[in-house]
Amino acid sequence: MFSEAMLLTGKKRSTIREIFEYGNQRAKIVGRENIFDFSLGNPNVPAPNAVTDTLTDLIKTIPAEKLHAYSSAPGIDEVRESMAADLNKRFGTTFRKENIYMTVGAAASLSIVLKALSEPEDEFIVFAPFFPEYRCWIENTAHARCVMVPAKIEDFQIDFEAFERSLTKHTKAVIINSPNNPSGTVYSEETIKKLAEILTDRSAEYGHPIFLISDEPYREIVYDGYKLPFVTKYYKNTFVCYSYSKSLSMPGERIGYVLVPDEMDCAGDAFAAVCGAGRVLGYVCAPALFQRVVAKCTGLTSDLSVYEKNRKLLYEGLTEMGFKCVKPMGAFYLFPQTLEPDEIAFCERAKKYDLLLVPGGDFGCPGHMRISYCVKTEMIERSLPVFEKLAKEYK
Amino acid sequence: MFSEAMLLTGKKRSTIREIFEYGNQRAKIVGRENIFDFSLGNPNVPAPNAVTDTLTDLIKTIPAEKLHAYSSAPGIDEVRESMAADLNKRFGTTFRKENIYMTVGAAASLSIVLKALSEPEDEFIVFAPFFPEYRCWIENTAHARCVMVPAKIEDFQIDFEAFERSLTKHTKAVIINSPNNPSGTVYSEETIKKLAEILTDRSAEYGHPIFLISDEPYREIVYDGYKLPFVTKYYKNTFVCYSYSKSLSMPGERIGYVLVPDEMDCAGDAFAAVCGAGRVLGYVCAPALFQRVVAKCTGLTSDLSVYEKNRKLLYEGLTEMGFKCVKPMGAFYLFPQTLEPDEIAFCERAKKYDLLLVPGGDFGCPGHMRISYCVKTEMIERSLPVFEKLAKEYK
Repeated sequence: MFSEAMLLTGKKRSTIREIFEYGNQRAKIVGRENIFDFSLGNPNVPAPNAVTDTLTDLIKTIPAEKLHAYSSAPGIDEVRESMAADLNKRFGTTFRKENIYMTVGAAASLSIVLKALSEPEDEFIVFAPFFPEYRCWIENTAHARCVMVPAKIEDFQIDFEAFERSLTKHTKAVIINSPNNPSGTVYSEETIKKLAEILTDRSAEYGHPIFLISDEPYREIVYDGYKLPFVTKYYKNTFVCYSYSKSLSMPGERIGYVLVPDEMDCAGDAFAAVCGAGRVLGYVCAPALFQRVVAKCTGLTSDLSVYEKNRKLLYEGLTEMGFKCVKPMGAFYLFPQTLEPDEIAFCERAKKYDLLLVPGGDFGCPGHMRISYCVKTEMIERSLPVFEKLAKEYK
Repeated sequence: MFSEAMLLTGKKRSTIREIFEYGNQRAKIVGRENIFDFSLGNPNVPAPNAVTDTLTDLIKTIPAEKLHAYSSAPGIDEVRESMAADLNKRFGTTFRKENIYMTVGAAASLSIVLKALSEPEDEFIVFAPFFPEYRCWIENTAHARCVMVPAKIEDFQIDFEAFERSLTKHTKAVIINSPNNPSGTVYSEETIKKLAEILTDRSAEYGHPIFLISDEPYREIVYDGYKLPFVTKYYKNTFVCYSYSKSLSMPGERIGYVLVPDEMDCAGDAFAAVCGAGRVLGYVCAPALFQRVVAKCTGLTSDLSVYEKNRKLLYEGLTEMGFKCVKPMGAFYLFPQTLEPDEIAFCERAKKYDLLLVPGGDFGCPGHMRISYCVKTEMIERSLPVFEKLAKEYK
């Protein structure tokens, strides 16, 4: 009666959402202040004032019938120009508005690119740990095969041997996500170079390009002055999927873009296929008011000092307790090993303390847990003795 | 290298957009005031003041980190409650928030419902004249067959004999759109009753429900005090797809909903499949700020008196010149017969006068043209002598 796949996808809520909802129920019983909810990646630092100021200004100065009108499908010209100009200024690139397709957030960017690319028998490669929705979109939107390269748990860079074994003539594209959700890892320039080299070689060997899909919603959230390598400069066949959800703390507004560089093989067709996929998936245009907002706020970020403080507190606190953890260089997640190999059992045990952690299995990385630290610092402070109690159970 | 279907969909711009872009090019040459552009359905009446006031108020009173946060996938609880309450007040229904799934506009509503329903070998029925994107979503999003029932051109109600012949055991659903784009026709209560009767009979005969998908973005734009029959009251297996694009004049903001009534067969599964389809198509949630805006403005409309005036001017003007036209009772389109059977030739001839009309072929109704009158009244006044000149060519 209904699509079996849609029914299953709709009934099986994501683990993250399950835990979040559990927390809401528990909060009603024991009080919000007694729940240590590290489940969601919902930024707690407010959007920069520029967002509010720009919103107010746009509403005052642009007539409603223009402000809220349809934009063309790829977006408002000036907005796309502004996106390109910002990238060029910061990364020394030479993009034009024609390279930018505005989207309804990163999920739309990803599902559109996957849909644009997919042909029968295609395979898409993801690197564990990876954002679980990738699998959903690869399998159900692109109707393709999701191939996972296991995690290199000592540093969460790429296990290139395993990667090389995963490539086949059916590989259509490879998804990377740096800074990474859930590990917070940032790919080094060396990793990107090596990845580009392998992709170039294999594309030549198979006689067709293997695309790189760079999912970058956390691009602006990096620590210790780390300079992120901009991927299109290393590999021409790269689609960049961006979102302002995390950098400007407005995940509910659903605004981002897909970048299709001119240097890409058949770039014109690539852009057309992106437009076609957007149309097919029901995206008429990205929300018009927020297109104009991000055009004015591109390059800005929310105040990252809170995340930096949270990272330090949690990373140092947990490693002192004996947790093993790769130090995250970006995003707002910590991805430590659990204190027993069965991470689901561990996270269940944590629940007894109302400590809500996300088991790593869904991210393709068992024996780990995701701790989202885009939360109030004082909650982290109060949570540390609770983590301590939990850790003691394992001593 | 890319999905063939996406590439084709992306390259073949919709006819409406083609004509609109042609108008923009011509305007640069002969001046905007000399172009009579009746191509787009982009409302020219501004959003009601309540929209601007609510926006301003929300930005001032709700902290940014809450205002722009993710909502749950089906939408913000209070918003969904407000949608249900508004329908109940106006149509005497008994919906609850659990019946409402907020979407990124009508295109999202439609593509989500089609994706939620579709199983292999499914057929979806559309009634000519119909919005051309239906075919795109049925074929490319739902991967199903689009079956068209030809237009009943004397009144654009349903040709029930042709409809009955189109139903098969593979019919999954039937899409209706009243008030209709492109004809402006509103289905009478008699039409809805007869449609419900046939669907009920055939559902019983085939042993599975045939769903009705009621696409209602123009629901609030009706003239002469006409009372629209609310479809779920006549047929329980109805999905209502709504959008605020037209009623509140904010098509760029992409906000609407899908309504799944409790009385529907397996309503719980239907709602779950809608959630699954939303997730698969990359919709995380509907834009958060505008969810709250429509919750405060539901039931309102932009000032319709302009459209009413435009309708009168154009309908009377054109019929006096000899154009045959069913008088539209809703939306903001006129769909007269062209003065030669080949509507493409006719619209091309109109272009010589910079009169931009959309040929009816894409709507499944050759020999007709769509005239979108959500434009400035003075442009209509100036266009009438031009229509007159064109008509004279056929005398």
